[in-house]
Amino acid sequence: MPHPLLDKHRATLDGALDAIRTRSYWSPYGEMPSPRTYGEGADAAGKAAFDALLGQRFALNQPGESGWHERESSPYGVALGVAYPVCDPDALVAAAQAAMPSWQQAGVDGRTGICLEMLARLNQQSFELAHAVMMTTGQGWMMAFQAGAPHAQDRGLEAVAWAWREQSFVPSEATWEKPQGKNPPLVMKKHFEIVGRGVAVVVGCGTFPTWNTYPGLFAALATGNAVIVKPHGNAVLPAAITVRTLRAVLAENGIDPNLVSLCVAEQRSTTQKLVTHPAVKSVDFTGSNAFGQWLIDHCRQARVYAELAGVNNIVIDSTDAYKRMLGNLAFTLSLYSGQMCTTTQAIFVPAGGIATDEGHKSYDEVCADLAKAVSGFLSKPEVALSVLGAIQSEDTLARIAEADSGAYGRVVLASGKLDNPDFPAAQVRTPVLVACDAGDSAAYNEERFGPISFIVKAADTAAAIAAAERLVATHGALTAGVYSTSEDVIDAMTAATLRSKVALSINLTGGVFVNQSAAFSDFHGTGGNPAANASYSDAAFVANRFVVVQRRRHA
Amino acid sequence: MPHPLLDKHRATLDGALDAIRTRSYWSPYGEMPSPRTYGEGADAAGKAAFDALLGQRFALNQPGESGWHERESSPYGVALGVAYPVCDPDALVAAAQAAMPSWQQAGVDGRTGICLEMLARLNQQSFELAHAVMMTTGQGWMMAFQAGAPHAQDRGLEAVAWAWREQSFVPSEATWEKPQGKNPPLVMKKHFEIVGRGVAVVVGCGTFPTWNTYPGLFAALATGNAVIVKPHGNAVLPAAITVRTLRAVLAENGIDPNLVSLCVAEQRSTTQKLVTHPAVKSVDFTGSNAFGQWLIDHCRQARVYAELAGVNNIVIDSTDAYKRMLGNLAFTLSLYSGQMCTTTQAIFVPAGGIATDEGHKSYDEVCADLAKAVSGFLSKPEVALSVLGAIQSEDTLARIAEADSGAYGRVVLASGKLDNPDFPAAQVRTPVLVACDAGDSAAYNEERFGPISFIVKAADTAAAIAAAERLVATHGALTAGVYSTSEDVIDAMTAATLRSKVALSINLTGGVFVNQSAAFSDFHGTGGNPAANASYSDAAFVANRFVVVQRRRHA
Repeated sequence: MPHPLLDKHRATLDGALDAIRTRSYWSPYGEMPSPRTYGEGADAAGKAAFDALLGQRFALNQPGESGWHERESSPYGVALGVAYPVCDPDALVAAAQAAMPSWQQAGVDGRTGICLEMLARLNQQSFELAHAVMMTTGQGWMMAFQAGAPHAQDRGLEAVAWAWREQSFVPSEATWEKPQGKNPPLVMKKHFEIVGRGVAVVVGCGTFPTWNTYPGLFAALATGNAVIVKPHGNAVLPAAITVRTLRAVLAENGIDPNLVSLCVAEQRSTTQKLVTHPAVKSVDFTGSNAFGQWLIDHCRQARVYAELAGVNNIVIDSTDAYKRMLGNLAFTLSLYSGQMCTTTQAIFVPAGGIATDEGHKSYDEVCADLAKAVSGFLSKPEVALSVLGAIQSEDTLARIAEADSGAYGRVVLASGKLDNPDFPAAQVRTPVLVACDAGDSAAYNEERFGPISFIVKAADTAAAIAAAERLVATHGALTAGVYSTSEDVIDAMTAATLRSKVALSINLTGGVFVNQSAAFSDFHGTGGNPAANASYSDAAFVANRFVVVQRRRHA
Repeated sequence: MPHPLLDKHRATLDGALDAIRTRSYWSPYGEMPSPRTYGEGADAAGKAAFDALLGQRFALNQPGESGWHERESSPYGVALGVAYPVCDPDALVAAAQAAMPSWQQAGVDGRTGICLEMLARLNQQSFELAHAVMMTTGQGWMMAFQAGAPHAQDRGLEAVAWAWREQSFVPSEATWEKPQGKNPPLVMKKHFEIVGRGVAVVVGCGTFPTWNTYPGLFAALATGNAVIVKPHGNAVLPAAITVRTLRAVLAENGIDPNLVSLCVAEQRSTTQKLVTHPAVKSVDFTGSNAFGQWLIDHCRQARVYAELAGVNNIVIDSTDAYKRMLGNLAFTLSLYSGQMCTTTQAIFVPAGGIATDEGHKSYDEVCADLAKAVSGFLSKPEVALSVLGAIQSEDTLARIAEADSGAYGRVVLASGKLDNPDFPAAQVRTPVLVACDAGDSAAYNEERFGPISFIVKAADTAAAIAAAERLVATHGALTAGVYSTSEDVIDAMTAATLRSKVALSINLTGGVFVNQSAAFSDFHGTGGNPAANASYSDAAFVANRFVVVQRRRHA
């Protein structure tokens, strides 16, 4: 008899399984924050739920509690004042281990059903989560809603679907009957149990506290592991809401809620102690190369799934839709002020310029036109504020100032500061565009997180493609793009991306952007270049999180 | 249109896919060296093919050849005199890289078809391979045939089937159509390419040069990677025959044969240079903890799939088939003189003895009866010689002598030296059994490879199960066993093996032995304890050997 929650959510699981196979468009979670999808009053209720959290202690009833921690500061300048329980990492790990056997015994059906229920419940909290994401990350409202709630839920569901596919393929039992010629056959009865590797730690980032956390969280959970979420110090609230909901669903279903917990680390050393604990068998991480490499070097007892920095890039060879190309790029460079791991940083343009439907454009014209496209797109304050959001960290503000000063090359478009009347303390910045030569690789070949992009002058298209390939192979990238009217050029760029192992977007001019990846269809990262050693989600993302323990006896 | 070789071998692939799903008995490769299966004269032809290799240079036409290497010494004392080409590892890697693009372009269908053809051709060489395995490893003839040829081919096919399952699930293209309310939908055309991670190195062992090599070899190959086989210095011939056949099949199918090559390393430093080459992205290894740990520590650019040492163990609580239990154990301890990674080393027996169908047996009686069972089983020379084979290494001979001297505890059964009239120089030894207390863990808690086993006196059954669990968790094991007439005891042992993550055999008394694992049904290793970080074969064994590189454009 299947688990009742698997029954309840079977259509969602089947839809997800179909989607990861066909990779067509699909999502069970409405991406528009509309009453038609979420019900009348959902918006107000979600806002009220969020407001009710402010200035309060966020109780989770976790073991090893020793105090309360409050440190988040909103990029919008709003006082959050939420205090989170500080818990001894060893106590969290011990409690997580103790909770695992019952989770293992729930079996694939039970675990999957409960994970699907968790996602459905998080979906009902989408407005509350969206406000929490917006206020902690500086994302604009629409993006915070979409990326923070339904799209993050999609990525979680995608991981659950892959986990189901791999686990459900292993039969729980088998009869093995080997013929022995004229003698009776050898007959063995075998049982196969799926056992999670151990405690998983998911280390979140400050810009996408749910979207980058749910894949590892749900992949680890669905495959039988306990999960400790270690959120970024400035984006705790979305993780805390998530953990509270998951713990509630676990408790309702007779599973020890300590299977999922939140570890608020006041110091880096706390995190280091947690992730190197012998019982921790996997670490999911999104963040800087420095700490990512530390994790890979030091967490030798665990599998590390890391998304690090990269230098995303685009090669422009030619186009038959110049204006729409510029418009597409302008949106990409502006969205959330470029504070996305997928935002383009280097745009390679041939020194001799490019052929377009508006005639030949010199390198300098391309620079000027892209600058105009960006400033034009952001000329309406209501558009600018909602697209740009706010700058999430002081470091990014400093990088913008440095780029603006000309330190990285000739400034083609200077960053501007905008006022947000709703949030007077918000730090709002428009993108800065820098022109440089391909030889100035020190300027553009490291990630400069934020709204900072380089229009890089390459000798010609072939040199541009070669430079882009080298950049991906040595510094990594999650996204690459090409604009060309020549199929030969597109083929050459395709071959370069197959060698350097990066996803390619070709001639994007419409409502799809290089920095967006759609769950169930686009693999986020290939796992094959330095920007990430794993992809959201594929078989490799789930298959090594559990082992199969068999037993056999004569039948 | 599917690849012609995929068409040709489709039934084999389908059979394998069905078998890894149902985990019932199945094999396409006959395990009996009989003319009915392999054809009249296959035996003689295979022997002649093997003999023709002796004393000759084994030409492979590989790049970077600088000389010839001859070092193998047969445990049977037969002069082999085969010289292998010594090739510069950098040249092999460069040639492997150059061969990869055409292999990638062959696609999943082409690669799978060609791998299936390779296995079919290896199967036709089963007699030749069996002689090569027997003469290099010291295995008895029947075992050399079965484990060295059809069973190894089964394990290779199993890896190909898993690789197919994971790769074929990823569609080569998709249309993504996202509704936009009243506006026309967003439509994207997407392509997904499977790309191998890079050059794979498979490091073989001296005792099972095909069975432990084929899983990694075929997993890496099928998923789009080039493979360099680095055989054990004393078991080169089976690997060389394999590589020559694979290169021939590649060439016949228009693929650069340098996709697969043999690296004969005269020095450890050559191997170390090879496996740490930046282009090497995976290393499969079977062997010692010392070198395995070196690989894990130093091959940071690669995924390492390692099968290391372990301490396999059995708990005896009670039995209703005392004689057959002893007979089953006697065979396990004798087969190939215990030179298997799956042979039982520690047998835990309660101090108070055990209940049996022949009445209560004290601990000392169990020791004496097991000793009698082993010597009785080996009393017929023809049985003894064919089961024991020969001792493969000087180190093992030294360990036997040490155990025999009483250095590890009271000798219950001393090892005997047998003469093999067919091979007068062969070193043939019968098993040594040592009795010790559970407290003498220094004696039994490290792997003592060879025919050396310990009958360990535990306080009671519960203490025995706890000691066995501890042994697996800290020192690793590929196999565990339990004998009991009590389902409570079996449940307790099952729970212990779920925690320590080791496969369990329960009450084996018939023609199945704890040290045997059947392809398609038994997972070899769980990958979850120190004896191995991967299993033959499962999704985790193949899924991270390739990445998916996508491209998308407006439709």
